[in-house]
Amino acid sequence: MQHELKHQKNLQVVLEQVLDLLKKQQLVESLVHKQAMPRHDLVQSLVERQHLVELQKKLERLHPADVAFILENLPLAQRKIVWNLVKVENDGAILLEVSDAVRETLIEEMENSEIIGAAKHLDSDEIADLVPDLPSDMALELLTSLDSQHRAKVQSVLSFPEGTAGALMDFDFVTVREDVSLDVVLRYLRIRGELPEQLDQLFVVDRSNVLKGLLPLRELLIRDADLLVSDVMKTEPIFFYTDDSAREAALAFERYDLISAPVVNLHHQLVGCLGIDVIMDFIDETSQKEILSQVGLQEEEDLFASVWKSAQNRWAWLALNILVAFIASRVIGLFEGTIERIVALATLMPIVANIGGNTGNQTIALIIRGLALDQIHPNNFWRMLYKEVAVSFLNGILWGSVVGLFAFILYHNVSLAIVMITAMIGNLLIASLVGVFTPLLLHKLGRDPAIGSSVILTAMTDSMGFFIFLGLATIFL
Amino acid sequence: MQHELKHQKNLQVVLEQVLDLLKKQQLVESLVHKQAMPRHDLVQSLVERQHLVELQKKLERLHPADVAFILENLPLAQRKIVWNLVKVENDGAILLEVSDAVRETLIEEMENSEIIGAAKHLDSDEIADLVPDLPSDMALELLTSLDSQHRAKVQSVLSFPEGTAGALMDFDFVTVREDVSLDVVLRYLRIRGELPEQLDQLFVVDRSNVLKGLLPLRELLIRDADLLVSDVMKTEPIFFYTDDSAREAALAFERYDLISAPVVNLHHQLVGCLGIDVIMDFIDETSQKEILSQVGLQEEEDLFASVWKSAQNRWAWLALNILVAFIASRVIGLFEGTIERIVALATLMPIVANIGGNTGNQTIALIIRGLALDQIHPNNFWRMLYKEVAVSFLNGILWGSVVGLFAFILYHNVSLAIVMITAMIGNLLIASLVGVFTPLLLHKLGRDPAIGSSVILTAMTDSMGFFIFLGLATIFL
Repeated sequence: MQHELKHQKNLQVVLEQVLDLLKKQQLVESLVHKQAMPRHDLVQSLVERQHLVELQKKLERLHPADVAFILENLPLAQRKIVWNLVKVENDGAILLEVSDAVRETLIEEMENSEIIGAAKHLDSDEIADLVPDLPSDMALELLTSLDSQHRAKVQSVLSFPEGTAGALMDFDFVTVREDVSLDVVLRYLRIRGELPEQLDQLFVVDRSNVLKGLLPLRELLIRDADLLVSDVMKTEPIFFYTDDSAREAALAFERYDLISAPVVNLHHQLVGCLGIDVIMDFIDETSQKEILSQVGLQEEEDLFASVWKSAQNRWAWLALNILVAFIASRVIGLFEGTIERIVALATLMPIVANIGGNTGNQTIALIIRGLALDQIHPNNFWRMLYKEVAVSFLNGILWGSVVGLFAFILYHNVSLAIVMITAMIGNLLIASLVGVFTPLLLHKLGRDPAIGSSVILTAMTDSMGFFIFLGLATIFL
Repeated sequence: MQHELKHQKNLQVVLEQVLDLLKKQQLVESLVHKQAMPRHDLVQSLVERQHLVELQKKLERLHPADVAFILENLPLAQRKIVWNLVKVENDGAILLEVSDAVRETLIEEMENSEIIGAAKHLDSDEIADLVPDLPSDMALELLTSLDSQHRAKVQSVLSFPEGTAGALMDFDFVTVREDVSLDVVLRYLRIRGELPEQLDQLFVVDRSNVLKGLLPLRELLIRDADLLVSDVMKTEPIFFYTDDSAREAALAFERYDLISAPVVNLHHQLVGCLGIDVIMDFIDETSQKEILSQVGLQEEEDLFASVWKSAQNRWAWLALNILVAFIASRVIGLFEGTIERIVALATLMPIVANIGGNTGNQTIALIIRGLALDQIHPNNFWRMLYKEVAVSFLNGILWGSVVGLFAFILYHNVSLAIVMITAMIGNLLIASLVGVFTPLLLHKLGRDPAIGSSVILTAMTDSMGFFIFLGLATIFL
């Protein structure tokens, strides 16, 4: 038998095929309806269903993540058709893979009983991921449908605040005692039969469930079977407390190339496991959220969301920016008299404001990066502040001169050029100070510095840029 | 014996300790030098060395990634002291962990012979990572120092362009034949002894090295040892070609929760292996580069880089933005006559320009996200363009009215308010079109859409914002 190699590039092709089948299906339907034939129900439904059956077969052969990809890329009506063709045992896995916005549209299509059916095929930690997105009556019915052990696990995960190791952990681990031989472990695993997909090591615990060490599967394969677990296990395991931040855990996975790691409570008792798959999803979600929220998008938009919904997704940001623009506009308003006298100021003023915003955003990006990597601490803070201010001063003199020269060439006015240079230096210094302190302050307040820093900066560099430039001009020109 | 649990939060503490030891060391040195004592060489060097020995012991107990963290957080002089205390066998691993900017400062401190010594402890793929950052004479000497098999592997990795699966692959895999029993495989592994750190599966190949399937270690532990490899192996392995893009590979790792995957040539012969550790580094590096390049930073800055070097890192961006600001400034210049007549225009015009830039950047973020996830294709392009334009139109009318009302309240001029609304609608439409087409165009041209899209957008929304607003004002007011 020729084996089939599975290659990534097929995914776009599969999507084309699905769209094609859906199109054919629609064509048949519309033909049947248009011709208004006497309804030979059986024949009609056979023809109509032919493509759907083919489609269903195709979907069954796909990985849940691939079905998720296809659902995300289908317009709402077709998404619903495809979603109803998916087998119940895959429903849960697919719901976990799709983006939040698309998940909402899929859940809308489901009955309470369907959700409960889908949840039967999910692990406790996966159910815990899903529950917050369900309507409250559905969530309640789902939780009560679980057996008590299962429910306790789901509730334990749900009890940890978002962004902690506890909220991300799962229960896909196998524990052994340190005083047994590897041979006993091997026989135990064989009897147990199935092992979790991404398992790379066993957790060694004592009678009170306190973590003692880690036993990599690798060692089981190559070490003498007569050795004890305690002889072979790693005795300095990297572990996490339930309330450690998920961000820190992700850094540790990256730093030490981990595949899995134990999660313990304050008594060092094993309570869960972090896997690289969950960590990767967390990293992806975080960086995605960061990019979107930097431009003020509250959530990722479903590609096929309505115009009205998409517009609302962007309003908070627009309102905030209009407020900032209003303030800057009023600052200019203070100097209308000066502008009336020297109209060149109106032409030149946006340069001062814009360059301040640009350099300030560079500083913000570096500070946010430093915060994410835990690199900013009292030991190097002053050194860093000095660097940013000095760079701004240097750039202010250098590029301020370029801009001043430009002003002089255009308006043959030395005083105007000098005002321009001075305003540039001043605004770049403000930009560097605001660029350093804003993200640090937001971080101290427990907020994500990636969100909001840029708006605060722009508010300052715009208003202050106009104020310094027009103020100096009022005094000296 | 009490076992030691290794917890992430210790890292900041370790850094404090290192800094403390370095400070004590400096204190001793300065005391000795200041007092200008008759030099009792032995005593002096003993005292001086005491702290360094302690420091060295501390460093030896640390993971290379942790030493890298500490090096990145030390000022240049102290970084050099610590770097010289690190054992040669860890040099290579540490060089691979530090950021590019810091790596440069460390390599500057090394002799050719030291690099070659460090490389002895590295795998072929790791040497290939390092070579491009070495001065060319050092790189050449390093390559000639390798044995021929080793060198061939290094060169094979170096031969693939950056950003492909081939350039990321390593050789940490174990192959088996499909016609042997699991028992034979188990005995083979035991004889082989050591297994690569992150190995989760064996690659099954035939006599011509063509990939036939994958054999998870898990299966080896629980399946009947009499079964053949071909009975147990996964026959539809997910694999990559050497010239597949690394970005696609990363998407597949995330989608299918992979730990490792084979890399094959066009004849489906196994040539290498992708591991999750490399993929995670790739993802981190890519997202880092994207964030930095969005604000025009050419590379990550060493926390302790000189002011001069940091300033240069930001010049290309500043120059580009000043050019954009000049153009916008000249557009305003066209209408100086109008502004002189109605000075309120100078006060209001930045609002139109800024809001255009803000909404356009939202569109850009969504398009870049869609491109990264392979979600944009001819089937949904028009639908997406329609959505963006419609959202802009809606927001233009809505927020344009708010802004128009603001203008009316300030200046009691209905025509001015209407010009303001019309200009807002016009500029938001331009913003949505530029926001959709700029990243798509850059992507088509094979460029990274995250770099440059935003500058092009700002150039358009600023210039056009001023042009439309002042142009309409000139005609109608």
